Amino acid sequence: MAFRTVIIGGDAAGMSAATRVRNLRAEAEVVVLERSRFTSYSACGIPFLVGGLIAGGVEALVARSPDEHRRRGIDVRTNHEATVIDPDAGEVEFVDEHAGRIERIGYDELLVATGGKAIRPDLPGIELPFVHGVQSLDDAQALLGLAEAGCRRIVVVGGGYIGLEMAEAYIERGCTATVIERAAQPLHVIDADFGGRVADAMRSHGIDVRCGVGVDGFEPGAVLTTDGPVEADLVVLGIGVEARSELAGAAGVELGVRDAIVVDDRQSTNVAGIWSAGDCATSTHLVTGRQVHIPLGTYANRHGRVAGINMAGGDARSPGVLGTAITKLCSLQIGLTGIRLDEASDAGLDAVATTIDATTVAGYLPHATPMTIRVVAERGTGRVLGAQIIGGPGAAKRIDTIATAITAGMTLAEVADLDLAYAPPFSSVWDPVAVAAREAIKAV
Amino acid sequence: MAFRTVIIGGDAAGMSAATRVRNLRAEAEVVVLERSRFTSYSACGIPFLVGGLIAGGVEALVARSPDEHRRRGIDVRTNHEATVIDPDAGEVEFVDEHAGRIERIGYDELLVATGGKAIRPDLPGIELPFVHGVQSLDDAQALLGLAEAGCRRIVVVGGGYIGLEMAEAYIERGCTATVIERAAQPLHVIDADFGGRVADAMRSHGIDVRCGVGVDGFEPGAVLTTDGPVEADLVVLGIGVEARSELAGAAGVELGVRDAIVVDDRQSTNVAGIWSAGDCATSTHLVTGRQVHIPLGTYANRHGRVAGINMAGGDARSPGVLGTAITKLCSLQIGLTGIRLDEASDAGLDAVATTIDATTVAGYLPHATPMTIRVVAERGTGRVLGAQIIGGPGAAKRIDTIATAITAGMTLAEVADLDLAYAPPFSSVWDPVAVAAREAIKAV
Repeated sequence: MAFRTVIIGGDAAGMSAATRVRNLRAEAEVVVLERSRFTSYSACGIPFLVGGLIAGGVEALVARSPDEHRRRGIDVRTNHEATVIDPDAGEVEFVDEHAGRIERIGYDELLVATGGKAIRPDLPGIELPFVHGVQSLDDAQALLGLAEAGCRRIVVVGGGYIGLEMAEAYIERGCTATVIERAAQPLHVIDADFGGRVADAMRSHGIDVRCGVGVDGFEPGAVLTTDGPVEADLVVLGIGVEARSELAGAAGVELGVRDAIVVDDRQSTNVAGIWSAGDCATSTHLVTGRQVHIPLGTYANRHGRVAGINMAGGDARSPGVLGTAITKLCSLQIGLTGIRLDEASDAGLDAVATTIDATTVAGYLPHATPMTIRVVAERGTGRVLGAQIIGGPGAAKRIDTIATAITAGMTLAEVADLDLAYAPPFSSVWDPVAVAAREAIKAV
Repeated sequence: MAFRTVIIGGDAAGMSAATRVRNLRAEAEVVVLERSRFTSYSACGIPFLVGGLIAGGVEALVARSPDEHRRRGIDVRTNHEATVIDPDAGEVEFVDEHAGRIERIGYDELLVATGGKAIRPDLPGIELPFVHGVQSLDDAQALLGLAEAGCRRIVVVGGGYIGLEMAEAYIERGCTATVIERAAQPLHVIDADFGGRVADAMRSHGIDVRCGVGVDGFEPGAVLTTDGPVEADLVVLGIGVEARSELAGAAGVELGVRDAIVVDDRQSTNVAGIWSAGDCATSTHLVTGRQVHIPLGTYANRHGRVAGINMAGGDARSPGVLGTAITKLCSLQIGLTGIRLDEASDAGLDAVATTIDATTVAGYLPHATPMTIRVVAERGTGRVLGAQIIGGPGAAKRIDTIATAITAGMTLAEVADLDLAYAPPFSSVWDPVAVAAREAIKAV
């Protein structure tokens, strides 16, 4: 029998791995079991699809279709749902939904790339059909269909970024949108004062952001909150994403933080022959060295790639992650990398946060908008640990400079001295990132 | 007598230094001799002023006026032109144009921050009044006045970025603009093929870019070129900037590359008590270790700051420079850092250039535009040496990521592994900078 790699899940992590194995090991059989009819799609694009920015329906979010993968020699089996992993037999049981039967397939190497799923709190009515996650292209199809069918009152439960992006998308469609957030501010990945600015920007855009409000349940046409019922034609879950790890867990694969599959830097699990990558797996944080569960498409792609190389017999390593992320919400861009001050404290690091206000471009240009940068650095050493940026157009992608500096282990003094690009349409003459670092030197 | 610092030149370098001395040494006298009536202005903003983007006249480009500096305890003397430096006596001779007399002032520490001037080739008619540089606010005043007075046919001589920016500015004013460039492509700081794209973008915008054409001279109303006369109401010199170093040179201060004042990493010249910073001085290139003359406002500010700290008795060092620069020309953004392949070759480095095409944002979004990244890296080590980026909105400021990586001494593999920010409105899921690095690994 030929060497056979089986991959459960045909999205970013799974198909990155499949492509690597295919390219590195010509004789290998590469089988992908995918529950849906899609492969390699951009879930991050769903808000833009629903918002009407993208023509062509959900297919427009597909980077490479099952047929394209098949033409490259990958045996993609769509509508095939894996149901059991049997490490002792070296087999996976699955349901072939085309044929309507259960089968088993043997593997030499197995990748679990089952991804994530929207967190569904255990509340009365959570299973009502008007409550949707934003995770798969089937979700996308449903959400787009509702937008096109004239669905008018949208309630987003939870202030995670995909939920906030969806609220904005539906506003673009002429709907009303309400965000129900339990905490004092939405977007918990950033500090509360920055989250407050996001809430204000969204309110200015016509989105009803209600903070400090809990959800008690759902009934047809309404979300029941601690603040009374809120009428809704559609509920979008925006609480977050959890690892889809039950299958692996049941097979004895070790689960860790937030029930994500524990992997080492080669994407190997504790069970011989079983690998994992993507939203279902942990990563190692570059700053704290801790295992974290940060479900991002960037990690799915790169960790899938590493898994594929290793499954094919190579030796690749996943570098630690920084949780670098970016989003645009109404008039604001938000970027973050590394750790917040509270995370530094949790990790036992003695850190200081420094905040500066600047403008996105030279202040004398008419399109200059405010931008705020917060840098977190270790007291004593001055090592940069994290940063958040919030502001108008051009603000947030600057976070990459700080992500690069953190990766290189730079100190604030080194960041302050960086030779960054200046011209009036792009920056002030003292680049705001360098200004933030110089200001932070005084604090550490 | 109190400790006295004299600074020749009240723009970025001079006033950065003055501010440092003022803050660090309360008892010092800080005297600034400035030829014009302005201090601390943004020459880089002149094209945007002339283009009509900025209201309020030339004053809008002044970051801090002479009176503001005076209120902070700096003795700014405008319309004072230094004429002789006498290191033996420790004095500077100057013309007080208010009083109409020549005087001398003694110094303990002297900063030469005389800046740069537009290169004026020695051609017949170069001194005609319709031939202008773009360097000072007096230039700005004249250029703005001509735009407002209905000056209609603009000819830019030379394809440096300030000239190209001026051509675009006058087009915005409803003028016609012709660029005369001797070489095959404009914008020599980038590779010729990238320069060609800039020329094409400018032509699409209605600017007549004529390459491979020399200038023989000027006569009233026309530029005489190797391609025949070109009618002109106004000629803008866009050939480049040279150091204004005659005064220092005459005093025995060593001049180096392109006659710029040679300084060490403390901004000290070869003459005791004399320092220099800004467009008149050299820098040390971080990649090659060579002395270079790269006149940029960013260096004027930071090197002036270093000079000021040292003049006040401190010990600051200027890090090497990368020549990181950015500009927007019509529909294109251009960013560069480090060295080009030809410069690597000149410096004796065995290097390879790798070019990738990408999009500025996720390809399925309607506002995605093409972007090209070229990375130069050392063969063998994979050390990143330089990069150029050209593309639509959001393309060019990414150069900062590469500038940071070069400063940190990163290899291509390390850049390929960077955790850079992804969301569809900002990037493709594999960040183009990382993609360029990964592709380049194959070449080195």
